[in-house]
Amino acid sequence: MQKVFTMSFDPSSLTYNEAGLIPCIAQDEESQEILMMAWMNAESVSRTLQTNKVTYWSRSRQSFWVKGESSGHVQQLIDLRVDCDRDCLLAVVRQTGPACHTNRRSCFYTSIQKDEEVELMQPMM
Amino acid sequence: MQKVFTMSFDPSSLTYNEAGLIPCIAQDEESQEILMMAWMNAESVSRTLQTNKVTYWSRSRQSFWVKGESSGHVQQLIDLRVDCDRDCLLAVVRQTGPACHTNRRSCFYTSIQKDEEVELMQPMM
Repeated sequence: MQKVFTMSFDPSSLTYNEAGLIPCIAQDEESQEILMMAWMNAESVSRTLQTNKVTYWSRSRQSFWVKGESSGHVQQLIDLRVDCDRDCLLAVVRQTGPACHTNRRSCFYTSIQKDEEVELMQPMM
Repeated sequence: MQKVFTMSFDPSSLTYNEAGLIPCIAQDEESQEILMMAWMNAESVSRTLQTNKVTYWSRSRQSFWVKGESSGHVQQLIDLRVDCDRDCLLAVVRQTGPACHTNRRSCFYTSIQKDEEVELMQPMM
């Protein structure tokens, strides 16, 4: 990959919504599967970069959410990317076990096909 | 892929934010690259499914945004997926040309590496 420019990174340079959050998509580095989408605040972004453990902000619990801290299904950060509008992040991760709380590898396990929803994958054992 | 259950789909069954929007991630069906993330309302979801042309809701213009309608850089819908919380969509697409308005294939063209931002790809010709 060609490095075209570099500049120093500051989490406050990202665009957050009115709640101070930015969406972050997690993609499996190996399979390239999209695992989940969750939210980060500026401090989550800093912690994720410092620890290489993907750390979201839980909107329901209103607290930091180190992915897999209780379940063991951690996401090791491989690469963190920013989009053109600086209002969405992409975390390329090494996922241990399922990413979804339903025990499926990915949260995106349902497909809409001809007005019907079809389940694409089952929970992991 | 094993089909575990099917049920009829209604766009109003999704969870939208206070502005009536749901984020939608676009992934290239072939390369599996994440191309962009934008927003849909319930009518965008219906139109996308009816036409197989990915149709977002432009927050800046407050209007429907048939991706590529003016640029020709259309996204043909291959599969539309819903996540476990029903508050995020994944559109698997066949992308014509660049997805990003900067003329890059993907909007996620910047990587954060050791407190520095590095450009990963250049605009397409």
